[in-house]
This record gives sequence, structure tokens and C-alpha cells, in this order.
Amino acid sequence: MSLLRTRSGSGKSKNQIILIFVSKKISWKPGTLIYPLPAALISCGTSPEDYNLFTVSWMGTICSNPPMCYISVRKERHSYNIIKESGEFVINLTNEDLAFAADWCGVRSGKDYNKFEEMKLTAVPGEMVKAPIVQESPLCIECKIKEIIELGSHDMFISDVINVQADSRYIDPETDTFKLSDAKLIAYSHGHYYKLGEEIGKFGWTVQKKKK
Amino acid sequence: MSLLRTRSGSGKSKNQIILIFVSKKISWKPGTLIYPLPAALISCGTSPEDYNLFTVSWMGTICSNPPMCYISVRKERHSYNIIKESGEFVINLTNEDLAFAADWCGVRSGKDYNKFEEMKLTAVPGEMVKAPIVQESPLCIECKIKEIIELGSHDMFISDVINVQADSRYIDPETDTFKLSDAKLIAYSHGHYYKLGEEIGKFGWTVQKKKK
Repeated sequence: MSLLRTRSGSGKSKNQIILIFVSKKISWKPGTLIYPLPAALISCGTSPEDYNLFTVSWMGTICSNPPMCYISVRKERHSYNIIKESGEFVINLTNEDLAFAADWCGVRSGKDYNKFEEMKLTAVPGEMVKAPIVQESPLCIECKIKEIIELGSHDMFISDVINVQADSRYIDPETDTFKLSDAKLIAYSHGHYYKLGEEIGKFGWTVQKKKK
Repeated sequence: MSLLRTRSGSGKSKNQIILIFVSKKISWKPGTLIYPLPAALISCGTSPEDYNLFTVSWMGTICSNPPMCYISVRKERHSYNIIKESGEFVINLTNEDLAFAADWCGVRSGKDYNKFEEMKLTAVPGEMVKAPIVQESPLCIECKIKEIIELGSHDMFISDVINVQADSRYIDPETDTFKLSDAKLIAYSHGHYYKLGEEIGKFGWTVQKKKK
């Protein structure tokens, strides 16, 4: 908490106010507070009739080489069985244009809606998986499940990244590099969606120039 | 790619330029492109002499109930054995004030530096683990390892969240809720650190008001 000390000025008309903030930690109940995270659209299904979309933030990279990732999904979710049975899914990163769909597909169920249709998104079969990619997403990561670990409320799908489809508009034709920074990705943090703001620095910037 | 069509004006002085962007996907090599992510400071060690700090983005929540998370770490990293032997670590979320430390601790090794000292950060033993928390972090997540999965370049430490320490300055005394949005967390995306920018909406916002 903050300590507030007020000292009167010595005979003069001005008062000095000194604010001292003392950082104090409070133990909180154990919880899921790792943020910020993506709010990615996960697409699944092996044929247009059972294509579905849902939103996940419990996801991440777990290995660089080979490239591997996970998503954690509740058994109750409509897509759970589709993913489990097909052994495949696609992670579609979301940008500002897809923020509405990211939220909506996270609170509505594929039992009740054809989410691709409702969100006017385009399903295109993956290159290496039967699951569709979301054509409007800047980056679509095609995944094949290696192992399912039951943890409690969520099962973790440990997966190999087997292909990535990148929107050509973010590829610099001169350097042939993918400029994800141009894609205006969104972040999810503790119940709120945010745009990415000002850049602070590039990886390694603190050792590339003199420390002040 | 973009198609550019130029039509001449019919005798008048103005030209019409129509730009049509056609979204096209290009298959990219399979890679680790899930972003944005945290750039969290992981603290470890059981006594002040072996306390260390390093930066991780391959991390996330894997289960809500019980609260569980993971970090993936290369065997070559100085902290790898410290974490493996102690079975514990702390995830310290980073904000704008900690961006320098987040980058620096990710490119320097604990073999060569006392990183707490170099970054002028304060190590305080955890409440439920021997590993220290970073007192300057807005939120410190104390973790106990349950299982280690060898994947390739990285080993995944599957862990229970056993305690969370929150900076009291972000706790709203009226509602007793933790306002992580005030903590100015940073995001890491494809080699760049960013501030979180403008808020787009709250979880569920798309079903709380009328859709346009």
C-alpha cells in the first residue's frame, strides 16, 4: 500500500507533499494469471458439415525444434470431440479485424451456430490437415496431435506444428521475411482484449546499445 | 498479393486508382509463431547464492482447475538444472518498467552475472516455494513442478500453481479485485516487445450489446 506523509512548510505558504509508494505483495488464491496471451481462433473438422471454430487462450509454443505447441480444451466444448477424433486442428492468429469473431466464437457454441457463416469467415481446407484454415487470419498454424494429457478442467493437446500458412500481404517480397508486426495482432489479458501498442524494443536491444 | 488497376479518366483531368487486395496464403516452414506472448522473468534457486533469473515466452496456462501452467526451457540454460533439482520456480510477469530486465535476462547467462544485482531487482523468498519472487513484478506466480516432458530442443515443465503474490497497488480496495489492466504488462511478438495498447473490449462484449 502507499504511505502518505504530509509535511507543513516552515512558515512559508507552500506545503510539501511527499508520496512514498512502498511495494507490498499480497498472497492471492492460486489462479491462471499468465498474461498477455493470444485469443486465437481454433478451427477443426474434417468436412464442411462439421467444420467448427472456437477461441482459445490456453495455448502456446512448447518446443522450438521440432516446432510443437499445445492447446488446452474443456471436455464440454463442442469442438473437443471433433479435435480428439480427427487428431488435427488449426490455430488462426487474430488481429484487430478478427477481434469480434474471437470474442463471439469464444462465448457461442458450434452446437447452436455455424460459426464460419455467422462471422462471414472463409473455411479453406488446410494444406497438410483436413481441418480448415480461416482464410481471413494473418497466420494459420496447422497442427497434428501427438498426445492428450488429462489435467482436470482441461485436457492438453500436445501437438506438432506441421505447416504454417501466412498471408502474403505480410511477407516482405524483398527479404522474403514474414512481418507479423504489420498484422495488428490482438492480445488477451485477464478478461480484456487489447491492440498491441507502441514497440518497446527488439529482442536483444539491451545488449546492442550502451546501457544508460 | 495486391492487384493494382489504373484506369484513366475519360477526358477529365482526374485519374481513378482502384486498389484490390486479394488475400493469398503462402505455405511457410513449420515454426513457432504463436503470438503475442508474455516475456516473463522466471526466478529460481533455493538460497541467495544460487538465485537466478531468466526470461521465457514459451509458457502458458494449461488447466484452470486445478490451476496449472508450463514453461519450456532448453537444457543448456543455466537455470535448467536449478529448476529441475529444486522442482520449483516463480513466473514474474513483466511490465513496462521491467522491459529492460526482461530483454537483458533473456540474453545474458547466470553463469556470468548475478542478474538480480545487475538489474537492481529484489529477491524475496516465495511464500510457498524456496525460489525467490521478483519484488518489483506486478504479479508473481509460485509453481511446483509435477512432470518434465522431453520434447527436443526444449523440456516442458508441467507445473501446479501453488500461490500467487500480487502487488497491492493493483488491488482495488473497494472490490478486492486485482486490476491487472493497471499493471502495464508488456507483450512479446515475433522478436519485438510491445506495450499493450488500446482496449478493444471485455470478454463477452459481442453478446452483451446488439450486433450491428
